Amino acid sequence: MTLATRAIAAAGLLAGQNLPGLIVVDDQGRPLTILPGTQVLRMAVPQYCQDDPTLARVIDEAAADVFLCEPGERTVAEVLPRERRELPVVDAGATVLEIAALMALVRSPVVAVVDRDGTMRGAITLDALLDRMLAS
Amino acid sequence: MTLATRAIAAAGLLAGQNLPGLIVVDDQGRPLTILPGTQVLRMAVPQYCQDDPTLARVIDEAAADVFLCEPGERTVAEVLPRERRELPVVDAGATVLEIAALMALVRSPVVAVVDRDGTMRGAITLDALLDRMLAS
Repeated sequence: MTLATRAIAAAGLLAGQNLPGLIVVDDQGRPLTILPGTQVLRMAVPQYCQDDPTLARVIDEAAADVFLCEPGERTVAEVLPRERRELPVVDAGATVLEIAALMALVRSPVVAVVDRDGTMRGAITLDALLDRMLAS
Repeated sequence: MTLATRAIAAAGLLAGQNLPGLIVVDDQGRPLTILPGTQVLRMAVPQYCQDDPTLARVIDEAAADVFLCEPGERTVAEVLPRERRELPVVDAGATVLEIAALMALVRSPVVAVVDRDGTMRGAITLDALLDRMLAS
């Protein structure tokens, strides 16, 4: 997704797939950063509930649905944290062990795979990597 | 899993399910902490590869399989980081909004559900929560 993607669409993307976060790309399709799943939640939950989660219990589920519509027209650019999470990047020639070492080093459960010009070709998740490692 | 679970079994548990981490419980079945997926990887990848992931490329895939068997008899207790990750806990009466607020607050993609005596009854992942939130 790009910086212009609507925040609510980002939540939908995340829910539809079993991903730990969403990769944000620039206009040229180069990976910029990752928006962790918990950050997507932060834009969907009212601030006063985050300050004191037990307050959230007094809101019944029907009212909660209204709150969860709040993100409205906000875009990904508006909800990105100032400190951007480091997104590790590999080229298409990377080995399984290399990707595992990189994930372990930067503690990221996602690695972006890029072309020579830096355009994103795909991504590899920790789940997919472990499946490959333990299958052999 | 418990502190006595073998590290290699933990990797298998993680690979078999789409989980962002594994919840560690004590002898009474009370949740202690969460072992993030990237931490499970750290025990499977040799240290010198983590120090310089590009070194990993010179190892061919067959040799990599040998390295990945290294964890051997190590247990979860031995691979837990000193700084334990905070694991949020809710009781069975928690609402969807309350759980979302808690996940957003502590930036954890997993919440443990406990009985009145603190015994773990189950867990809720961010994925499962988003599915529920966006289905309504």
